[in-house]
Amino acid sequence: MMANSYTSIVLHNAVIVTMDPERRVFRNGGIFIRHDKIVAIGHSPDILRDFSAPAKKIIDLHAQILLPGFINTHVHTSQQLARGIADDVDLMTWLHGRIWPYESNMTEDDSYISTLLCGIELIHSGVTCFAEAGGQHVSGMARAVELLGLRACLAQSTMDSGEGLPASWATRTTDDCIQSQKELYNKHHNKADGRIRVWFGIRQIMNSTDCLLLETRDAARELKTGIHMHVAEIPYENQLMMDTRKVDHGTVTYLQKIEFLQNNLLSAHTVWVNSAEIDFLARADVKVSHCPASAMRMLGFAPIREMLDAGICVSLGTDGAPSNNRMSIVDEMYLASLINKGREVYAKGTTDPTALPAETVLKMVTLNGAKSVLWDNEIGSLEVGKKADMVVVNPSSWCMVPVHDCISSLVYCMRSENVVSVMCNGQWIMKDKKILRVNEEDVILSARKAASELLKRAGIIIPNRMNIL
Amino acid sequence: MMANSYTSIVLHNAVIVTMDPERRVFRNGGIFIRHDKIVAIGHSPDILRDFSAPAKKIIDLHAQILLPGFINTHVHTSQQLARGIADDVDLMTWLHGRIWPYESNMTEDDSYISTLLCGIELIHSGVTCFAEAGGQHVSGMARAVELLGLRACLAQSTMDSGEGLPASWATRTTDDCIQSQKELYNKHHNKADGRIRVWFGIRQIMNSTDCLLLETRDAARELKTGIHMHVAEIPYENQLMMDTRKVDHGTVTYLQKIEFLQNNLLSAHTVWVNSAEIDFLARADVKVSHCPASAMRMLGFAPIREMLDAGICVSLGTDGAPSNNRMSIVDEMYLASLINKGREVYAKGTTDPTALPAETVLKMVTLNGAKSVLWDNEIGSLEVGKKADMVVVNPSSWCMVPVHDCISSLVYCMRSENVVSVMCNGQWIMKDKKILRVNEEDVILSARKAASELLKRAGIIIPNRMNIL
Repeated sequence: MMANSYTSIVLHNAVIVTMDPERRVFRNGGIFIRHDKIVAIGHSPDILRDFSAPAKKIIDLHAQILLPGFINTHVHTSQQLARGIADDVDLMTWLHGRIWPYESNMTEDDSYISTLLCGIELIHSGVTCFAEAGGQHVSGMARAVELLGLRACLAQSTMDSGEGLPASWATRTTDDCIQSQKELYNKHHNKADGRIRVWFGIRQIMNSTDCLLLETRDAARELKTGIHMHVAEIPYENQLMMDTRKVDHGTVTYLQKIEFLQNNLLSAHTVWVNSAEIDFLARADVKVSHCPASAMRMLGFAPIREMLDAGICVSLGTDGAPSNNRMSIVDEMYLASLINKGREVYAKGTTDPTALPAETVLKMVTLNGAKSVLWDNEIGSLEVGKKADMVVVNPSSWCMVPVHDCISSLVYCMRSENVVSVMCNGQWIMKDKKILRVNEEDVILSARKAASELLKRAGIIIPNRMNIL
Repeated sequence: MMANSYTSIVLHNAVIVTMDPERRVFRNGGIFIRHDKIVAIGHSPDILRDFSAPAKKIIDLHAQILLPGFINTHVHTSQQLARGIADDVDLMTWLHGRIWPYESNMTEDDSYISTLLCGIELIHSGVTCFAEAGGQHVSGMARAVELLGLRACLAQSTMDSGEGLPASWATRTTDDCIQSQKELYNKHHNKADGRIRVWFGIRQIMNSTDCLLLETRDAARELKTGIHMHVAEIPYENQLMMDTRKVDHGTVTYLQKIEFLQNNLLSAHTVWVNSAEIDFLARADVKVSHCPASAMRMLGFAPIREMLDAGICVSLGTDGAPSNNRMSIVDEMYLASLINKGREVYAKGTTDPTALPAETVLKMVTLNGAKSVLWDNEIGSLEVGKKADMVVVNPSSWCMVPVHDCISSLVYCMRSENVVSVMCNGQWIMKDKKILRVNEEDVILSARKAASELLKRAGIIIPNRMNIL
């Protein structure tokens, strides 16, 4: 593990999009960072005048854009090695034929390598913090996150019931699930300079007894941490709730009934909800992670505009590589705007090009992301006293020029190519497109090898689409 | 203008996705190119054995992927300088408040610079050939295309009627429209080593008299060239056709009635069509350009699956920068697959992850693109005798690894970052991510200046979204 190299640094001559309560944007802004925190932010000349002396380094950002680090609130880091194993197949083949065999054959080392590879991709798209959706080997993930320098809310995927589970998973009791998560909490929570938090995870309601749901709720409340759960993903899930648990709509209605909904719940996808359910979520201050790519591919149109109108905190996630397959929060911003404009055809008959404007999307990926991971007291905006989690974007390349509208350019034009440097917790983790704390090439080589062996072990064979010679 | 540097070259040790009739993919393939044409293609050892002697250069592609150049069948190159001037506004503001003032204030030089900037972005996303949707200054476009080394079907935007047109456009007669296009044909068709073709352009039916439509049809037939037209973009357009031209559905029904539909028509967008109209298009062998990003943002869900099922040749387009704003055909591939999977919710109630599989999307952007621009005898696949229009993709970076399914990886994982080299007409136009025939930095500087002056001239003011200090 690398030693920390905390320093004090002035960055100046940047367009700073603060996302602070006044939504200030400094045309020629400067920022002073000491250790892991923002000490001052303002006009470049003022910052230079006041903080050049104490700064160990002064960096001219040459009119590049400085933003809060992006927050990816739903990502399966364990699934990175499974990118491309389940493309263009129906949902049952996806789950039973590909993803479950893959995940149930993973070792902790596979998970470590998968999270490393995923983390590299996340950093390249400007992510400084993510919420893990839940995999099997949290300790493997934690090792990778610590090494990469990222911030994360990690979670184990837990299931104590359900049909067709892989043999190695089918025997877990509710107690096993809760106990192992408490151990992970004790082992990893607040480690890596406070960058890692451990959450509780529930895979989905179809694999959870009421007992697991309620004990998870109580344990998370007791430990003051969050719960990450897939909610209302497909119509079948809602139908099953109506058939077996005697409610008049779906999962959200049932979760409301058993008093599971609370403000530390991060509800992923949340596609098939009606207006009563939107109201339940809003009143309980449940957070929603919208994953546009994966929703389009597998799930459907989440009522994001309605949720935002109801005051729900909606953030953005990439989901996992076999559902997406790009793991770029930058692409999700672009998609969120496009898809929710287009969704109005489905909801109302014509598209609405004014739906989900760029400033809303940017808020989803910063401020709302921070609230969703229960960390908005320290991250999500560039403000004095908050952690220095930041992204430097170069808007001067062919894919962004000309920039007539800086905020919309960030959402509609920016690609991961434009993300040049990333700082997390006061330390650069990518500089000039180079990942600093691991060797990219080494990770890529290990990932290829691990992925190919894992697929063999799991007996997953992917048919050819063309005439391979 | 650069002198041509035709050569004979062997590329080997590549994964070659030929898109030939047998859909052959060579795991370790080689290709021999002489002048502008493919002379041989096959296994690397065979190509090296037979063609190393005559080759002036032998290049090892180190297991990178070689593909036919991508074809973008709907792009407004003149609108590149307008990127970001019309984000998140309603359609009327978009057209009357932003795009028309912008376009009607352009000079030929603006158009030249705009096409240069757009061309750079197209090349970076692997495009070797595009169909211009129609702008005002075809000669400006042609200069840029010739310089960049691209292949293109250029078109003028013509309108001889309609409400609310800018003053400088309102006076054009039908004769002016036809005559000026014939002159452009004589001046530019088959120029630039045959890389430029001139098509006829019709902006849209609401700005066209019957006379313009029919004279365009006849002139294009006589000159054996194509017609590019925006068709059935919004419900209002169809309603207007029903109200004023006495047909029972929309634009396509009307075009069928006046015998305008023929196999040299490239029908852009084509979103609001019913099954009878799909049948008209199929029987006339009209080609359709699907622009997923712009459709989601402004128009709606085109029935692409139904069109493909009916045998219509559907290809992909980026549309123009103010409608998208990314001008990346690579992103459009990803979007086409996602959006058409999601559209099944709108059409049938649930998504269909098997809709528009990767091999279909790849066909749309190569073979179908070539057919759409009436050039499939020379481009669209890597086959002996065809032109050497090719893309080299590096699949070994963090955004594509691991590659379990090469074809789906190209559609779902590849980003423009992975496109490393591009050849058009037997000549490299980008090598190792460097555009060869123009200086990117110079173009970016000129584009910024021209864009800012043009906006001033046109009186376009873009409101601030945040508190700019």
